[in-house]
Amino acid sequence: METSIKKRKSKTVYLGAIQIGGDAPVVVQSMTCTDTRNVRDTVSQIRMLEEAGCEAVRVAVPDEEAASALKDIRKQISIPLIADIHFNYRLAITAIQNHVEGIRINPGNIKKDKILEIIRFAKTQGTAVRIGINAGSLEKDLFVKYGGPKAPALVESALRNLDHIVSSGFENIKLSLKSSDVATMIEAYRVISKRTDYPLHLGVTEAGTLIPAAIKSSIGMGILLYEGIGDTIRVSVTGDPVSEIDVAYGILRTLKIRKIGPDIISCPTCGRCEIDLLALTQEMERQLKGIKSYLKIALMGCVVNGPGEAAEADVGIAGGRGFGMLFKRGKIIRKVKEGDFVRVLMDEINTMIRDGKEA
Amino acid sequence: METSIKKRKSKTVYLGAIQIGGDAPVVVQSMTCTDTRNVRDTVSQIRMLEEAGCEAVRVAVPDEEAASALKDIRKQISIPLIADIHFNYRLAITAIQNHVEGIRINPGNIKKDKILEIIRFAKTQGTAVRIGINAGSLEKDLFVKYGGPKAPALVESALRNLDHIVSSGFENIKLSLKSSDVATMIEAYRVISKRTDYPLHLGVTEAGTLIPAAIKSSIGMGILLYEGIGDTIRVSVTGDPVSEIDVAYGILRTLKIRKIGPDIISCPTCGRCEIDLLALTQEMERQLKGIKSYLKIALMGCVVNGPGEAAEADVGIAGGRGFGMLFKRGKIIRKVKEGDFVRVLMDEINTMIRDGKEA
Repeated sequence: METSIKKRKSKTVYLGAIQIGGDAPVVVQSMTCTDTRNVRDTVSQIRMLEEAGCEAVRVAVPDEEAASALKDIRKQISIPLIADIHFNYRLAITAIQNHVEGIRINPGNIKKDKILEIIRFAKTQGTAVRIGINAGSLEKDLFVKYGGPKAPALVESALRNLDHIVSSGFENIKLSLKSSDVATMIEAYRVISKRTDYPLHLGVTEAGTLIPAAIKSSIGMGILLYEGIGDTIRVSVTGDPVSEIDVAYGILRTLKIRKIGPDIISCPTCGRCEIDLLALTQEMERQLKGIKSYLKIALMGCVVNGPGEAAEADVGIAGGRGFGMLFKRGKIIRKVKEGDFVRVLMDEINTMIRDGKEA
Repeated sequence: METSIKKRKSKTVYLGAIQIGGDAPVVVQSMTCTDTRNVRDTVSQIRMLEEAGCEAVRVAVPDEEAASALKDIRKQISIPLIADIHFNYRLAITAIQNHVEGIRINPGNIKKDKILEIIRFAKTQGTAVRIGINAGSLEKDLFVKYGGPKAPALVESALRNLDHIVSSGFENIKLSLKSSDVATMIEAYRVISKRTDYPLHLGVTEAGTLIPAAIKSSIGMGILLYEGIGDTIRVSVTGDPVSEIDVAYGILRTLKIRKIGPDIISCPTCGRCEIDLLALTQEMERQLKGIKSYLKIALMGCVVNGPGEAAEADVGIAGGRGFGMLFKRGKIIRKVKEGDFVRVLMDEINTMIRDGKEA
């Protein structure tokens, strides 16, 4: 089934050469977890993120040394660089001088007049600015007014800071309203999506290690993206940021918002399964790593749903006892021995990709 | 934020002593991947599932030997046992004779008159029956009518089989309309939820290994559960079924539908972080394994969102350089050395659980 999602209309914003919002695809972001002052480590991590499909990268800028390092980092990477600024507006000025494509400011810890100083300078350099509201660092008056970092508090913070910045004549703005509470995050984005047409950067913040982060992000972003809300996303994972990219594309692929990478349909196995399906699936995942083509590959343990699923897929195997039937787009091709599954499937897949016949 | 989810009204069905639908909590299920004929392995896996929180378990019944094994399996486990039946209605009869609490039948591969024979016998024994529609094994006429296993085809299959069974005077029925295509699955359940009030068993089928399965299940079930749809769920994972339980409770916990198990809020770390947060988070996950109490535990790398998140949590640490501030429900308790984080947090958590003060 094709996606029936109707994307919310949003303004187009430029993060360097990359378009965010408008008719652009949903952009996948991540953030480094290296010490930004260590240029070599940071560049190395960014390159791994780029290779995994990261389209814009954010780095923490806790001090002037980190802000200065941005100059060298910028020269050595290909994707837009975003400086994450808290507390000290001067770090934003240095970051912009060092040609970052974007900055993220947190109105919870930078004063209004200082934000305007940043904005004035960003305007002269064409820098994009994200107003990054976060439940964990909300402005005190709103925390008090709403009795905590609730959705309406996040929305009011975003809107008043947006007004403040837009009225100064600046428009290259994205907004985020993150919370570690998924229901709060969903409600905040739903409301803001109707109150403004600036592009929205989605995220469930502080979502934990890989599995909980995948669950929370998939629910929070999945619900919003399925409603057409969201122009760029960042999955937050405690751990290797490369895994954030895999989860982000997994979410977008599941919703068919961006058809990137193979979609493996594999059954949970049960008492009917007579092949080693887990080993097959893991080996196929390993061999397909890095492939950007969208292909539906069915790896099925038995004849209950096997032929049905395999028939719907671009290529698939439905297992029997020590052998399987190879299917290609609804047609049985031939019987294959279990030992040959991976080789035969990869041959078919490589041919499809080479001939540009992927979906 | 508390959940604002309003659950769809559904009939109450009994799976042995367990209530599904009505005002019952959403029930978490799984399925074994052992050879059902091997009673020892199957019972051993079911016990691990039980320990992880599985509340009903399904086993494949591919032949009479497997159907006979159900008798011994049934005696050695505590949760309701469900026999998964395809092709051969006689296996359902044997399973019911062996006192399973539920059977799942697939109308895609069992004929109408044979289904009625199963139903007649299930009625005499008080067995619950799930009409398990699956996109991979849909009835041929509907496949042809709709040009594939699309959502309306799944709905028509479910409704006509439901009518057929209900008109025979049987009502202890659950329905599932699974697809490996998440958009199809969402649409099918949304439509059926308005057409009938029988309890719904949710699942994204053939969802792949752990990470993709977590993503697909969280999106598919997350969207539906957030709309109040779903009385029992099964996450399908290619791999250890115990991981299905963890993902299922992760989804329910995120949506605050069932508050079971600790919710760890941990940041993705960045260039600001001066403690080993990943190691701390992983060690806390390890020590909290198996704890059923719902507690919000914040593990934060720095002072940007750290104190804010830690303050919202039952207990939390916001890291500095080699130390952290311990927070308890909004109050700073004291400064703690990094080496003592786990011990201090676990002491606080154990005290909260002992005193019954968890949320």
